Amino acid sequence: MIEEIGRRAREASHALRQSTGESRRQALLGMAAGVEEAAPAVLEANRADMAQAEGEGITGALIDRLRLDERRISAMAAGLRSVASLPDPVGRETGGWSLYNGVQLHRVRVPLGVVAVIYEARPNVTADAAGLCIRSGNAVILRGSSYALRSNMAISGAIRGSLTSAGLPADGVQLLEDTSRDGAKALMQATEWVDLLVPRGGPGLIAAVQADATVPTVIDGAGNCHVYVDAAADLEKALGIVVNAKVQRPGVCNAAETLLVHEAVAENFLGEAARALMAENVELRGDDHARELVPEMGEATEEDWATEYLDLIMAVRVVPGIDAAIEHVRRYGTGHTEAIVTDDRVAADRFVAAIDTAVVAVNASTRFTDGEEFGFGAEIGNSTQKLHVRGPMGLESLTSERYVLYGDGQVR
Amino acid sequence: MIEEIGRRAREASHALRQSTGESRRQALLGMAAGVEEAAPAVLEANRADMAQAEGEGITGALIDRLRLDERRISAMAAGLRSVASLPDPVGRETGGWSLYNGVQLHRVRVPLGVVAVIYEARPNVTADAAGLCIRSGNAVILRGSSYALRSNMAISGAIRGSLTSAGLPADGVQLLEDTSRDGAKALMQATEWVDLLVPRGGPGLIAAVQADATVPTVIDGAGNCHVYVDAAADLEKALGIVVNAKVQRPGVCNAAETLLVHEAVAENFLGEAARALMAENVELRGDDHARELVPEMGEATEEDWATEYLDLIMAVRVVPGIDAAIEHVRRYGTGHTEAIVTDDRVAADRFVAAIDTAVVAVNASTRFTDGEEFGFGAEIGNSTQKLHVRGPMGLESLTSERYVLYGDGQVR
Repeated sequence: MIEEIGRRAREASHALRQSTGESRRQALLGMAAGVEEAAPAVLEANRADMAQAEGEGITGALIDRLRLDERRISAMAAGLRSVASLPDPVGRETGGWSLYNGVQLHRVRVPLGVVAVIYEARPNVTADAAGLCIRSGNAVILRGSSYALRSNMAISGAIRGSLTSAGLPADGVQLLEDTSRDGAKALMQATEWVDLLVPRGGPGLIAAVQADATVPTVIDGAGNCHVYVDAAADLEKALGIVVNAKVQRPGVCNAAETLLVHEAVAENFLGEAARALMAENVELRGDDHARELVPEMGEATEEDWATEYLDLIMAVRVVPGIDAAIEHVRRYGTGHTEAIVTDDRVAADRFVAAIDTAVVAVNASTRFTDGEEFGFGAEIGNSTQKLHVRGPMGLESLTSERYVLYGDGQVR
Repeated sequence: MIEEIGRRAREASHALRQSTGESRRQALLGMAAGVEEAAPAVLEANRADMAQAEGEGITGALIDRLRLDERRISAMAAGLRSVASLPDPVGRETGGWSLYNGVQLHRVRVPLGVVAVIYEARPNVTADAAGLCIRSGNAVILRGSSYALRSNMAISGAIRGSLTSAGLPADGVQLLEDTSRDGAKALMQATEWVDLLVPRGGPGLIAAVQADATVPTVIDGAGNCHVYVDAAADLEKALGIVVNAKVQRPGVCNAAETLLVHEAVAENFLGEAARALMAENVELRGDDHARELVPEMGEATEEDWATEYLDLIMAVRVVPGIDAAIEHVRRYGTGHTEAIVTDDRVAADRFVAAIDTAVVAVNASTRFTDGEEFGFGAEIGNSTQKLHVRGPMGLESLTSERYVLYGDGQVR
């Protein structure tokens, strides 16, 4: 099964590798129109998915993620048009020089080949991932949730038709209809066919990928993000950043989970910060020092420091200095985003140099770690690993650099 | 065991990450001097390694790789001085722009953290790998061959002393004294401590890494490299390239293994090429068409096309055109280096676009795929995978890019 799909994806990737950027741009515009035209069929498929999911007792956030409507279909099409308008990363020369013997060396971006994406309920990922992969010259194998199978089939069917119309192979986008765990595992181990696997989902999916995947992966892992308010912080800015980082959208990975406050400003800052956070319904869990200053706080345990709440809860610790803040972040951070608020450039430089994370924000909210915010136009994930790419993954992250040498008969 | 070593490496990596490029440059100069000063002890340790290996019946190439002498120790020191002189990749800004709200984004190269290198007999890899990792701000865990343990300990001991003298942590370079398979496996699975594993060795080691490693790896895999002589080739240049690619150093991964010749030039080219190759003691194994033209050739089987001989043997196939050559390379190539000889720019472009390999050489020998030849000064390996880095891996491949945001209180 995966053998046949993999072989087709590889074949399609050969054609995509050799296609022009313009043809891929046109294909994305066609995909956008295709998704819009297929809206009635997609919505019908989605109603069937919803009915089955509700019949199985699914409720709340999961059902909301599964639901499509005219607006969400328009957003999918708009996303494809937006990715069509992004600069083509393929063929971009990232370096070039002459060897001692006159051989001309060019370092050039090329597609990775075949990208696999395993994702959970949201059917819009079908269109988003397909758009990013095709735009960057890759074939994609999509494996969505069983709950969204009908919706995903309707969307990918429309997209495949648009690829054919654009003169590109329909197998540039394939959806696995086998949504079993065994099917996912086979995809994770299809080393002959898959050049990159991007898992998009919760801790369970990430753990399965880490345990089972033998294909190259980029892990879109947890974001246990911290805001450290330094002794030299502008406390007004600090307040804005802390509240924004925690409450603007608490359920996402770039939301802050722990507030670290330098003891020199704790007394001035923490009371006001706690009031502002509690006014936004944030539950606070502090260490002893923080609770002395703000008795309304609950008690933070070791587990709190290590937890990505993804909720209106924040852990609070008063630290004796920047070194203790750095130590805390090194111990509990997950390599996603860490912020420092300070007007002391030396402290900022020290924090930036000491903390090994995809993104460090100085005097800005952790919430800026995002492909759209960074100006990538879209993202296929957010890498918390160090190899290949860190942070928001745009089109460039779906390519790698290779070398082309032009000689005139040179030998060693 | 690996727990303790990993923890020390991580600790050292924090200090290295924050060290200046100049201090790391000085450390490498100190390491070079340290290795030279330790020469008597290193040579004594090496004599003991050699005696034991010979006692165990080891002979030939393996003994040669294990052997150290004054000249090889000087070469190690010279290598360290050469890497010291290379530009520092750490801190280099690879991009920067302003977000819509005035936040300044900087994309900056940073060390990976902890690099593990598993290698076979050559003790000089101890110094080479340590030099590249320290220069690029990484801590390294070295796991060499049991045959070379005494030599490696003497070399790494000298290097560790030099690190301390330079004000950097000695644990920036650690050598595993446990050279068992279980020890190697523990290193391959030390996901908490190892940010990148580079295996340097033969197919057995690569297979073990592919089967067992759970840490991120860059595979330095096989080089089943082809030279395709096109219909529009300058046959004199083609002859030079084919002979050089096969015979100049047949035992290395960038040597050519298969010659593909367009049928339009086969009659004019193959006889002369065969004579030249056979004069260099190359055994030729051809397909039916090639053997018609050169009856002295043996018969190539399916296995020949897939074999990296690493020896004075070459498979030869006459192809009806460039498409067949591309098809052959796609099927049997290993993503290392592929060469085309042609004066037809359209054919060259087509080959370059169609072939997905780390290096494509147009009218140049496959032998140029090498860190020194590329001007990287040194290499820690040669990647045949697509993620992170392809081809010769210099200092830059031991770093990744992360983002630093400077704001003035911006929130979303």
